[in-house]
Amino acid sequence: RCAACKYLRRRCPSDCIFSPYFPSNNPRRFACVHRIHGASNVAKMLQQLPAHLRAEAANSLYYEAQCRTQDPVYGCVGILSLLHQQIHSVESQLAKTRAEIA
Amino acid sequence: RCAACKYLRRRCPSDCIFSPYFPSNNPRRFACVHRIHGASNVAKMLQQLPAHLRAEAANSLYYEAQCRTQDPVYGCVGILSLLHQQIHSVESQLAKTRAEIA
Repeated sequence: RCAACKYLRRRCPSDCIFSPYFPSNNPRRFACVHRIHGASNVAKMLQQLPAHLRAEAANSLYYEAQCRTQDPVYGCVGILSLLHQQIHSVESQLAKTRAEIA
Repeated sequence: RCAACKYLRRRCPSDCIFSPYFPSNNPRRFACVHRIHGASNVAKMLQQLPAHLRAEAANSLYYEAQCRTQDPVYGCVGILSLLHQQIHSVESQLAKTRAEIA
């Protein structure tokens, strides 16, 4: 059984939507995604995608869920703000350096 | 009734966890968050936070849900990648400009 089916205490069907992306050797990966997005939403989101994009989607859902677990208020939106600040800081250093040249 | 209780077709209790953050005049806001995170997960996440942080959490959950709706594969993790690229680009411009000075 994959990590999702083990967690949900159900039989893992041969065409399980979770099994390729939530292997049984990583139960925390599914638990984390389930806590933030909910198993049924994750299943729906994966099903709506063509098969070759599902692994990437599962990875990004896991990343989002990890961020939300670490920062329950801002999740990965907090990281977006930090990166925006970093861009502004480097851009202003660049402008300053260019002004020095001029 | 708030947007969440209207969507879930239930009575809006006086201590509704959704009502301060999902007003009835913006039904799409709740629908979007519900589709990505699920109403019960959102309720749980808000309840686990002190009241003064819930508005920010609801906003960041909505932002994440909008990103995921627009980009079902990467969600706001796609924006993180773009910002990382942008930082690298500005940093290399800065390094180049500094090298010119030297």
